[in-house]
Amino acid sequence: MKEYLNPKKNLWTSLVKRPSFDTSTINDSIDDIFNIVKYSGDEGVSLLTKKYDNIELENLKVEEFEIENSINYIDDILKESIDLAFKNIYKFHKSQLIQNNKIETSHGVLCWQEKKPIDSVGFYIPGGSAPLFSTVLMLGIPAMIAGCKNITICTPPSVDGKVNKIILYVAKLCNINKVCLAGGAQAIAAMTFGTNSIPKVSKIFGPGNQYVTAAKIKSLQFGTAIDMPAGPSELLVVADDSANASFIASDLLSQAEHGSDSQVVFVSLSKSLIKKVKSQIEIQKTGLSRVNLINASILNSKIIYFENEYNAIDFINEYAPEHYIICVKNEDKFVNKINNAGSVFIGNYSPESAGDYASGTNHTLPTNGYAKQYSGVNLDSFLKTITFQKISKTGLCGISKAIETMASAEGLEAHKNAISIRTKELLDE
Amino acid sequence: MKEYLNPKKNLWTSLVKRPSFDTSTINDSIDDIFNIVKYSGDEGVSLLTKKYDNIELENLKVEEFEIENSINYIDDILKESIDLAFKNIYKFHKSQLIQNNKIETSHGVLCWQEKKPIDSVGFYIPGGSAPLFSTVLMLGIPAMIAGCKNITICTPPSVDGKVNKIILYVAKLCNINKVCLAGGAQAIAAMTFGTNSIPKVSKIFGPGNQYVTAAKIKSLQFGTAIDMPAGPSELLVVADDSANASFIASDLLSQAEHGSDSQVVFVSLSKSLIKKVKSQIEIQKTGLSRVNLINASILNSKIIYFENEYNAIDFINEYAPEHYIICVKNEDKFVNKINNAGSVFIGNYSPESAGDYASGTNHTLPTNGYAKQYSGVNLDSFLKTITFQKISKTGLCGISKAIETMASAEGLEAHKNAISIRTKELLDE
Repeated sequence: MKEYLNPKKNLWTSLVKRPSFDTSTINDSIDDIFNIVKYSGDEGVSLLTKKYDNIELENLKVEEFEIENSINYIDDILKESIDLAFKNIYKFHKSQLIQNNKIETSHGVLCWQEKKPIDSVGFYIPGGSAPLFSTVLMLGIPAMIAGCKNITICTPPSVDGKVNKIILYVAKLCNINKVCLAGGAQAIAAMTFGTNSIPKVSKIFGPGNQYVTAAKIKSLQFGTAIDMPAGPSELLVVADDSANASFIASDLLSQAEHGSDSQVVFVSLSKSLIKKVKSQIEIQKTGLSRVNLINASILNSKIIYFENEYNAIDFINEYAPEHYIICVKNEDKFVNKINNAGSVFIGNYSPESAGDYASGTNHTLPTNGYAKQYSGVNLDSFLKTITFQKISKTGLCGISKAIETMASAEGLEAHKNAISIRTKELLDE
Repeated sequence: MKEYLNPKKNLWTSLVKRPSFDTSTINDSIDDIFNIVKYSGDEGVSLLTKKYDNIELENLKVEEFEIENSINYIDDILKESIDLAFKNIYKFHKSQLIQNNKIETSHGVLCWQEKKPIDSVGFYIPGGSAPLFSTVLMLGIPAMIAGCKNITICTPPSVDGKVNKIILYVAKLCNINKVCLAGGAQAIAAMTFGTNSIPKVSKIFGPGNQYVTAAKIKSLQFGTAIDMPAGPSELLVVADDSANASFIASDLLSQAEHGSDSQVVFVSLSKSLIKKVKSQIEIQKTGLSRVNLINASILNSKIIYFENEYNAIDFINEYAPEHYIICVKNEDKFVNKINNAGSVFIGNYSPESAGDYASGTNHTLPTNGYAKQYSGVNLDSFLKTITFQKISKTGLCGISKAIETMASAEGLEAHKNAISIRTKELLDE
């Protein structure tokens, strides 16, 4: 781990920088994949699955009976655990529904907003080293509450050409019966254009590698919306002497095991705590199965000591971490002053793992500093807002002169006329 | 205008289609423009302004005294009009601030959301045929309420190398003191990378032509967020015999004057109304200054008669209009059943012009059918949501088994360990 003592502000730009990946080198192959899927549909997706995953598929859609039967493969303890997580995630996201207020902006001018579900959404669920069924919960539950009618999951097949049973089980819990075997950029292209087996969707959600992210950005050119551009996962912990070194080490390690490109940052307000945490990391990591990935990402991780806590706060806002754990005595100061973060975990007993699975908050969050401008996935991600206005005769008369004057000043005479023709009739009444 | 009588559902796909523009033909020049601005900064922007607008600029930033002095060029009636619009837009967007509720998902597990402003935002304000100062109000007011600290306006210079005084005046009203002379894709590139005169921003807002839209999508690759991809403006009116034909004609014409690519759709539940509206269009358009643009866009516009009102409602949801005017006797049915629209105008005295300028709703809205998945600009567009959680010792014990089981099932042992290390200590207490 690289250590920095009270780094000066002019160093921060480089300290907050994530390893960049030059997407221009992969954009050409993304273009090719989009063209193949656009013009060859299912056949194109199958060809690309053969090429990239070396798997031959007869059918891109998981049969509904396989989804139904998945329940028989899940043990009771896992079922109970998923039920608890489901209940908490449901409760938190349901609380995000808000009341619509009608506002009278001027006398007789009534304006309001209503949120409506996005009809068709698609979830990309990564396969690979771990079957991320928790992401199905995190996307499926708010989509269910929002009322999205058509939900499609795309997930890469395992070596046996199948989808993990737990993913199917959780899909069923979320009332999703369309699960398709497709991974990488070809899955995103398929949800962008639609194929015989994979429906075209209006918005694509979910994490993925650089190819998936580049493909999601490409899909915007064809009118598909996306949740956010995703990058490698990140954790920043801030702590002082009131913290527990072994807890912090366990949190840093939990982030590090995601992959060699995971970002792990420890901001310490205490020099002695740094020593303790480093020693705990060495002790704890030896017993972990993904120790190779951990060693790789620990190499890139950073420990930063700040004597002045206001500098620490400024630095954290500049970094804009995806996950942010606060373990300090005066936690309110750190909580109130955070402007840029995906999800904040407060106190010694709020580890990131809790939010990853079962506390109720969403784990699909902005990485790469994007917390400065993007929200994590929440209920609103599955809704869009429509505005309404109803203006009475009196209401229109009250604002007519303003509209006519402004339309004239913008050179839009027909806009003015749409008002004048109405007010003239009202004067004649 | 093209007329359709009770079109069958299999024709709807082509009827709701907007004229497509193949962005692949312009993506190469967008790439070039981005490279020039990235590597040559202000000098690159100036070169491109010379090349595309044929204007030589000494300074890309409008001097603050010019913004201050703009008030001297605005007449009192326009000032009063802008003040009324400001008040209504402010009131409606202020009402969108919501209270944060803390939710206890399980005993001792407290979760909540907080919205924070996006620090740096950039507005693209088109120049050209009309100085769209109303768009400055529509973006500046919610940004102000949200608390965005750094706001930059980019707008193309007029032939005299200056910015329209009304744009400067409205910028000042919205506390914006950074107005830059840059248009087209080079303005978007400048706000993406930052130059000496034009700051890098986190999110870019505002309408523009196909080059601006393609550049906004390109900017996503570099981590900038955008409000939405924009296309030519649209209006759909649904009406029956209770409507006033001359009002409808005036609304269709107000949309048509935006440009030759404007989309104008009239869905009628009455055959006789169609005749009256067509005749009113002929009468009203002769007096209008932008009659050439109107004639061009009227050519592409559509009149669709539906005998069955449920078919009309389904068609309108499939079209997903940016602006949607409802002038029917039983308006509640049409209001309640709309799922896809940007902004809805209800009744004979709610013309689109009202929402364009002064009723209080926003006029930056999703076009091209994107109302299926995008909201128009509103207060939330300038905020991002952070989630928080604070878990007590008891709270963690209650959800620990679920987290450990799920983390194990996903093969993430260090995630499990971050829980076990805490619960073990609690058991030892």
